[in-house]
Amino acid sequence: MKKVAVIIGSDTDLPVIDKVFKKLKDFDIPFEAHIMSAHRTPSIVMDFAANARKNGFGVVIAAAGMAAHLAGVVAANTTLPVIAVPIKSSLDGIDALLAMVQMPPGIPVATVAIDGADNAAILATQILAVSDDVLEKKITAMKLNMAENVMQKDSKLQERLNNNQN
Amino acid sequence: MKKVAVIIGSDTDLPVIDKVFKKLKDFDIPFEAHIMSAHRTPSIVMDFAANARKNGFGVVIAAAGMAAHLAGVVAANTTLPVIAVPIKSSLDGIDALLAMVQMPPGIPVATVAIDGADNAAILATQILAVSDDVLEKKITAMKLNMAENVMQKDSKLQERLNNNQN
Amino acid sequence: MKKVAVIIGSDTDLPVIDKVFKKLKDFDIPFEAHIMSAHRTPSIVMDFAANARKNGFGVVIAAAGMAAHLAGVVAANTTLPVIAVPIKSSLDGIDALLAMVQMPPGIPVATVAIDGADNAAILATQILAVSDDVLEKKITAMKLNMAENVMQKDSKLQERLNNNQN
Amino acid sequence: MKKVAVIIGSDTDLPVIDKVFKKLKDFDIPFEAHIMSAHRTPSIVMDFAANARKNGFGVVIAAAGMAAHLAGVVAANTTLPVIAVPIKSSLDGIDALLAMVQMPPGIPVATVAIDGADNAAILATQILAVSDDVLEKKITAMKLNMAENVMQKDSKLQERLNNNQN
Amino acid sequence: MKKVAVIIGSDTDLPVIDKVFKKLKDFDIPFEAHIMSAHRTPSIVMDFAANARKNGFGVVIAAAGMAAHLAGVVAANTTLPVIAVPIKSSLDGIDALLAMVQMPPGIPVATVAIDGADNAAILATQILAVSDDVLEKKITAMKLNMAENVMQKDSKLQERLNNNQN
Amino acid sequence: MKKVAVIIGSDTDLPVIDKVFKKLKDFDIPFEAHIMSAHRTPSIVMDFAANARKNGFGVVIAAAGMAAHLAGVVAANTTLPVIAVPIKSSLDGIDALLAMVQMPPGIPVATVAIDGADNAAILATQILAVSDDVLEKKITAMKLNMAENVMQKDSKLQERLNNNQN
Amino acid sequence: MKKVAVIIGSDTDLPVIDKVFKKLKDFDIPFEAHIMSAHRTPSIVMDFAANARKNGFGVVIAAAGMAAHLAGVVAANTTLPVIAVPIKSSLDGIDALLAMVQMPPGIPVATVAIDGADNAAILATQILAVSDDVLEKKITAMKLNMAENVMQKDSKLQERLNNNQN
Amino acid sequence: MKKVAVIIGSDTDLPVIDKVFKKLKDFDIPFEAHIMSAHRTPSIVMDFAANARKNGFGVVIAAAGMAAHLAGVVAANTTLPVIAVPIKSSLDGIDALLAMVQMPPGIPVATVAIDGADNAAILATQILAVSDDVLEKKITAMKLNMAENVMQKDSKLQERLNNNQN
Repeated sequence: MKKVAVIIGSDTDLPVIDKVFKKLKDFDIPFEAHIMSAHRTPSIVMDFAANARKNGFGVVIAAAGMAAHLAGVVAANTTLPVIAVPIKSSLDGIDALLAMVQMPPGIPVATVAIDGADNAAILATQILAVSDDVLEKKITAMKLNMAENVMQKDSKLQERLNNNQN
Repeated sequence: MKKVAVIIGSDTDLPVIDKVFKKLKDFDIPFEAHIMSAHRTPSIVMDFAANARKNGFGVVIAAAGMAAHLAGVVAANTTLPVIAVPIKSSLDGIDALLAMVQMPPGIPVATVAIDGADNAAILATQILAVSDDVLEKKITAMKLNMAENVMQKDSKLQERLNNNQN
Repeated sequence: MKKVAVIIGSDTDLPVIDKVFKKLKDFDIPFEAHIMSAHRTPSIVMDFAANARKNGFGVVIAAAGMAAHLAGVVAANTTLPVIAVPIKSSLDGIDALLAMVQMPPGIPVATVAIDGADNAAILATQILAVSDDVLEKKITAMKLNMAENVMQKDSKLQERLNNNQN
Repeated sequence: MKKVAVIIGSDTDLPVIDKVFKKLKDFDIPFEAHIMSAHRTPSIVMDFAANARKNGFGVVIAAAGMAAHLAGVVAANTTLPVIAVPIKSSLDGIDALLAMVQMPPGIPVATVAIDGADNAAILATQILAVSDDVLEKKITAMKLNMAENVMQKDSKLQERLNNNQN
Repeated sequence: MKKVAVIIGSDTDLPVIDKVFKKLKDFDIPFEAHIMSAHRTPSIVMDFAANARKNGFGVVIAAAGMAAHLAGVVAANTTLPVIAVPIKSSLDGIDALLAMVQMPPGIPVATVAIDGADNAAILATQILAVSDDVLEKKITAMKLNMAENVMQKDSKLQERLNNNQN
Repeated sequence: MKKVAVIIGSDTDLPVIDKVFKKLKDFDIPFEAHIMSAHRTPSIVMDFAANARKNGFGVVIAAAGMAAHLAGVVAANTTLPVIAVPIKSSLDGIDALLAMVQMPPGIPVATVAIDGADNAAILATQILAVSDDVLEKKITAMKLNMAENVMQKDSKLQERLNNNQN
Repeated sequence: MKKVAVIIGSDTDLPVIDKVFKKLKDFDIPFEAHIMSAHRTPSIVMDFAANARKNGFGVVIAAAGMAAHLAGVVAANTTLPVIAVPIKSSLDGIDALLAMVQMPPGIPVATVAIDGADNAAILATQILAVSDDVLEKKITAMKLNMAENVMQKDSKLQERLNNNQN
Repeated sequence: MKKVAVIIGSDTDLPVIDKVFKKLKDFDIPFEAHIMSAHRTPSIVMDFAANARKNGFGVVIAAAGMAAHLAGVVAANTTLPVIAVPIKSSLDGIDALLAMVQMPPGIPVATVAIDGADNAAILATQILAVSDDVLEKKITAMKLNMAENVMQKDSKLQERLNNNQN
């Protein structure tokens, strides 16, 4: 199976990004994670991106805050789909969101919610699952599980409301 | 090859979305396009989404404006990756951007720039190219072409600046 | 009397929404509350909405955060008035506000303030009171009560200011 | 049947609000419309609001721009549900939206989209339809009509796409 | 001397507004303060505003949060200058700021910074000082005092920097 | 009578500020107007401000766009009340609004709406009218006139609606 | 004298950037201009930046729109000061502004106003003038010229106002 | 070597600005720091700015919050490059950012990120290094150091990930 690459602009983003690792493990998807900076180690980022496909990666997740260029720099140097996670560190994360999602024509990045680490991992999985029926079944199972979880919470609410009324 | 589904919330979005059609044709990627509304024809959207994978689609592009729920409704009902194009129709498109990109945990959509139709098509192509080397070569060619285009424009600027100085 | 339905996107919204329950009890208005997710349990939401009127509901209150589609999905599937409460969980709640209030033509939702649970309950009561004079009297009483409360606080301020001057 | 009151802050808002009149006529709902200003004719607004219920009104729609206080002033003086239409005249209408939707606890207004005249009329109709089955059938018919309209537009798109391919 | 009226929308605003009281006492300016709500006690606000000039007031300071209509309602009912203090309670106070400063033509309010209680008191003093040379001298003295305060802080910084270098 | 000073950052602001001149003439208030720049002619601005009171001015109106410092620079150098008009030239005027209204403690400016020239003139008049009963009567007359104007527009709307129904 | 490098992300930015060329010519400062894209020709940008100092450049001006990474990519690869000009092409330019100015610690860019081409050229000149007294005299002359220009416009306004009064 | 001037609007900004002092000491760059207020001690600011170049300064760093005019006032009175640091004290610092970066044509300031003290010091160093090869080498060393730091953090992450897998 193709691997997922998780690129993080700074180790301060790890508490948010740990959810990516957990989710990918849940799906048994092989991944590598690296701290690399578009601004401090730009050629490392470019090299990694340029070789990502031939090194067995299928998707790249890039997470960064502020004027977050990391996903764009990766996308400029690979043909793989790149998922961008804007990290909240100033201005509630709106700076990172706009610096990621508003990519000019030609070089898209697939942006998820501010601090949306869970969804980045799920989206990466969905991309790999396009041609992988086993993986697709896992996503379907996860969705059923989420639905059941919502229904259980609703049951608890019904109990609570009933108790209040008696 | 898997097909791309292009779902449009309203026919007023077609002038923006025509670029998706053009780009997908450039890549020779089969696609279907439909006008469907998350709010006016919700069950048509849900049925389409629920059957998209088994009907041969690999990616869904959903474009809508204002409180743009279309991509989210599709994503809730399929395991395929869903690309969201926020369409500018009020507030410079920031309403559609936030209504798309800020999806809660569990159901991601891959959001591109406001009115970013070109990039939606390229991202869909990149997703299909993960397991398709022929398609990947086409993206590489497109990127080389873009780079050459930039270099030609730079040459024109050099001519103009030289002429001004003499 | 028609019932009020209170639909909540996640149990994390309960601390805000408890004010809805309290207010509706103050007015002796029958209500049901459910945790349902536009994205995780979409067909449960659609079924609930489609049957809400015939199941004796007169108004639906829907509360959700981030890209908050819950109110819109309910409104798409019922003719009942739907009240939207944007819940603050990121970006100070402006994402949920825009994802709710900016509904496209044809499917309105009646949006109240960010975390405006009190007002959602009062608005639901006002809607039911259009054709219910007893209920209308209760709202009038509540408004008199609020006014008296303001006047009492003013009296306390006068005392405090007088004490400071002597 | 209860009447709808349409209150407009300025005659410059009429081009937007004409859609309210048209929609209410489509539904055969009796209405009155008045130009009244929260700031220029405050006591006229207060008197109108205070007597609206006993004068046969069931809902009030209030439309205004900038620091739009009109809906709030009406709501402060009546127990009827008040629908607020923020009118775009500066800052893309975000000033009017916030000045309307962010009402403090106790006095809700039901806010629709910026310039959302259509939806204000539909929401008013939904409120009156809570206890009026004939009116509810009209809304159901309107929704079916909207759905058919979307489907017809989709058919046109299919024709166009088919023609392009042949 | 004319009095200053300080009108507060809610007692929760008192911690911010206490600075107004302190500043006015520093200037020996007579003032009255009242808790009154544009939405909960609208006719009290209108009566107060309508009689403010003949009751000996020269300026009104109005402080409120969220969809802050208080200053506008006062200004609509008096010819006195009205100073608006937007109070931060949601959205960092930008809702209150826009609901106050964006008054439509004809009825101005003099808006100061979010939570800018100090400046509201100073502005009120400046307005009364236009025709009062004694008061003007007090403002001049306050400004000299502020300047000296800045210079003292600079001296401390010089000490600290010198100590660090030795 | 004290004069009003109108300070404009650039002659491109004159089309907006002409309304100030017109309004002040309507009230027969003496005024002087000057183009002065906080950034291009800073010492002229400081001299003007420092001497404004002794030169017979009672209020200063300062209008500027972008990072609009003009009102703040004037306020720093006078004890007169300074009215700020944020001029829209980029970002819909929100830059000028924040650069004016968010003055730090100690040096207030009285900010009106973006491009709110009318209101700046009326506010200046209200400030001068605090101690001038003749001027106050003129403001009262203007307000009555505005109210009649609204009522006439309402009459026209009634005619139009009646004609449509017959 | 060191040269100024002007890097432009797209030829659509030339109408704004022509002011940079004009201003630098006014100051007789040698410059080169190039169209290069952080996303389409990333290695050309990196090479240019890496060699800029040894190729005789003293400052780099980088102009781009949307998720504008150009200035950041240049700054990551040179020790020269980099001036960023956010170009307005969507969202009024706030996306480009935040993507440029919010650079993370370590790699600054010197950001000027949205579309602030004039100021970018003047800032570049000021940087070169730090160690160049002739250049500094030219800036002083330009500032005197700007001041005179403002004073002439003021004279015209005085004429106009005097004519109106007679 | 030319000195750097660090001007701070208020001593409350010192915790942020201490990073400037530290960074300049790291580079062995002589500097002076002063607390001066554009609004409370305007003539001190103007005098300092007017004499900065002849007093041996090469760059000015100005830090302020809210309607932050300090950098603009300095820039208006010197030909030296002025670096602006917007300080976060309300509205997440967006008010200070816009009040600094949106300078009108003619008087640029070089704006860095909100609270971007580190980058202000580095940018000042880069400006002085344009004509100082020793200083340039220090910046190169700092950049190498930053890169190594990132690589060490990446090594730690690899260890952690490896440990988790075994």
